[in-house]
Amino acid sequence: MKNSFNIALIGLGQIGNYLYNELKTKSNDIYIKTGKKIKVVAISAKNKNKKRQFKIDKKIFYKNPLEITKNKNIDILIESVGLSDGISKKIVETALKNKIHVITPNKALISKHGDYLSELAEKNKVNLEFEAAVGGGIPILRTIKESLATNKITKVYGILNGTCNYILSQMEDTKDSFSNVLKKAQQLGYAEPVNPKLDLNGYDALAKVKILSALSFNKKISNTKNLMEGIENIETKDLEIVDQLNYRIKLLGITELINDCLYERVHPCLVKKNTYIGNVNGVMNAVIIEGSPVGQSVLQGEGAGPGATSSALMSDLLSILRGNIKYPFGISKNKRKKVKIYDSNKFSNALYIRMEVKDRPGVLSTITKQLSKYKISVQRLIQIPDHKKKTASIVIITHNANELNSKKFLKSLILNKNILKTPILIRLF
Amino acid sequence: MKNSFNIALIGLGQIGNYLYNELKTKSNDIYIKTGKKIKVVAISAKNKNKKRQFKIDKKIFYKNPLEITKNKNIDILIESVGLSDGISKKIVETALKNKIHVITPNKALISKHGDYLSELAEKNKVNLEFEAAVGGGIPILRTIKESLATNKITKVYGILNGTCNYILSQMEDTKDSFSNVLKKAQQLGYAEPVNPKLDLNGYDALAKVKILSALSFNKKISNTKNLMEGIENIETKDLEIVDQLNYRIKLLGITELINDCLYERVHPCLVKKNTYIGNVNGVMNAVIIEGSPVGQSVLQGEGAGPGATSSALMSDLLSILRGNIKYPFGISKNKRKKVKIYDSNKFSNALYIRMEVKDRPGVLSTITKQLSKYKISVQRLIQIPDHKKKTASIVIITHNANELNSKKFLKSLILNKNILKTPILIRLF
Repeated sequence: MKNSFNIALIGLGQIGNYLYNELKTKSNDIYIKTGKKIKVVAISAKNKNKKRQFKIDKKIFYKNPLEITKNKNIDILIESVGLSDGISKKIVETALKNKIHVITPNKALISKHGDYLSELAEKNKVNLEFEAAVGGGIPILRTIKESLATNKITKVYGILNGTCNYILSQMEDTKDSFSNVLKKAQQLGYAEPVNPKLDLNGYDALAKVKILSALSFNKKISNTKNLMEGIENIETKDLEIVDQLNYRIKLLGITELINDCLYERVHPCLVKKNTYIGNVNGVMNAVIIEGSPVGQSVLQGEGAGPGATSSALMSDLLSILRGNIKYPFGISKNKRKKVKIYDSNKFSNALYIRMEVKDRPGVLSTITKQLSKYKISVQRLIQIPDHKKKTASIVIITHNANELNSKKFLKSLILNKNILKTPILIRLF
Repeated sequence: MKNSFNIALIGLGQIGNYLYNELKTKSNDIYIKTGKKIKVVAISAKNKNKKRQFKIDKKIFYKNPLEITKNKNIDILIESVGLSDGISKKIVETALKNKIHVITPNKALISKHGDYLSELAEKNKVNLEFEAAVGGGIPILRTIKESLATNKITKVYGILNGTCNYILSQMEDTKDSFSNVLKKAQQLGYAEPVNPKLDLNGYDALAKVKILSALSFNKKISNTKNLMEGIENIETKDLEIVDQLNYRIKLLGITELINDCLYERVHPCLVKKNTYIGNVNGVMNAVIIEGSPVGQSVLQGEGAGPGATSSALMSDLLSILRGNIKYPFGISKNKRKKVKIYDSNKFSNALYIRMEVKDRPGVLSTITKQLSKYKISVQRLIQIPDHKKKTASIVIITHNANELNSKKFLKSLILNKNILKTPILIRLF
């Protein structure tokens, strides 16, 4: 194995720029730990002259990142552009084909093209490392690949999106509205300033869930449409009501094998206040792994931000420098089978349903009739009247209800003119 | 690298026997993940005919474990005897000298002889792996060595002994006495049946702290006498009093660098009920790492038991089979310097002090006089009289008090005839 590695870094946003500085200041630490020398020999970004936290060396700047991947001198390429396709895919693909090790925090890319790219890596005998794609600074992927490698993992779930967790925590603490708290999150850098949608609608968390599934269950990445709901419709009112019932609302990503079929989903959940997951607040992420024989393993840490992400990217780099395991998903491509998908309509879940209704006689009875029709039994019902507006909030906590029936029930309410808004449905965890 | 590995397993107690079964039943999984075949070719234990959960193959049983280490066929030896010296040390030492990879969950051995043994491993170019020595199923050592490798770690602390945590949780929940709860823990297998002392007096947790320090701070293992206090003197009364003050009592292991000097200690702590660490109950272990740039990382899981321990031992095995990093402490022996030791007398801590006194005029005043002499200022004072016995409990929560002064204060009370028992001192975290 060679003793000196040339590194290219593409994408110099918050994360790329922070990492650039880490690579420069920690090369001696890296040498002590691995016996290898590193040198950043090429960088590329959209804008050469943008103001950045750490100065870049313009002499090694390439306008066209693809030129870098053709450079025979590059041993390791770090992609930090962040698209699911386009230039990100092209860069990683070309690098792997040119036998360059690749490191990326890009969950969109890996969750979409991870199977293809990992096959390329395996074929070309180079590493494709993406620890930073899930859980930021939480070493969750390496833990599954290495530390829990011989466990039979049956379920992995957690808080995988710091933006949503921050917003929900803040809404609970301040009683402020979703849109106001989102604005604050954007000001603090906890939410994307231009388009925060992919965080808020569950897409980001679902990409992470897909990567976790593939690693935990040793299967190909699933490419079916999954249950994906975000937090955009949750109102302060919901947080206040569940607070009184001793719950909090958390956006959870969950993946599990049910009768050997994969059930992946992302949606808000009511979680009990006195549980572990109910107490992971703010921008923190947490992942819980249920495996045998290890039992329950919990990992918690900062889920985003340049520091935490850089820590994970550096661990990928050290793994390459130390010559550690190569299969990007822990096992060879031939051993990773397609996974059967669980029919989510069969699943049962207790539900929180909030309906805004006209405060008139008979309204409740039409709702309970529909509930009964779809075999949804009520565990608790709370009616909160608003005398001024002559409306009421009806909140129902159900016993376990079938997912398909719940959908039909909600659909059946559309025609009910006494219901003033689309009802809010949140699953209990 | 060879494709087939012969394994010897020495020690067939609860853990060894469980692992033996795992090795036999999971050899195909291991082959899929590593491309290597394994075979258990030699076993040894004190008692060949003891009744065990899983049957052993008596044809490969050796009466003398040292004979195994001389066997040229052995590639990997797993030591699960558990002594800090004696036969455990002899086995590991001989194996390493004979270029056999060694895996051990033996924290007593590693915390005492880890530097010497890791030098032997390095010299003979074999692995010495001991993930299971700290935190059972929690992948804490590999996380420090690999995932957080380029972070500057400044503090590591946590609940490192499941026996003590179980006993304290049970005492809090049931209001039962230390000795009764200990008996129950012994019946359930959570405490050693014959000699639970090494768990209860903090020795076990301190051994783990020493290993964590060496890895986190890239130094030699410290061999100074450390602050080590157990839970044997804690009474149900203390748990009841702190409960009212919104605290719990946890036995914490803590290691940190203060001005580049190492301060390791194990002692009971008052922790706030609403903190993360205050909610790790029962036999669970948890470790919190403070590093830069990663921030705070938390790992929680089952700290003991054959399942969790086997999971960690298997991860060590896979690391060897995959040819992963070799330095047992993450960096080469030449780079691991001796560490300077922090003078614990300089440390300051808020304190909980409970004194049992005769209920007489002037008693409190003599105590407060002594407090004032040793510059310990009182934040809160609670006096609970026992009119029948004409005694009282005086509980003081202090502001930050110097460690040396606190010791002197406690010593000064010995001559005070109004104080009926050795006072209980618990530090606030």
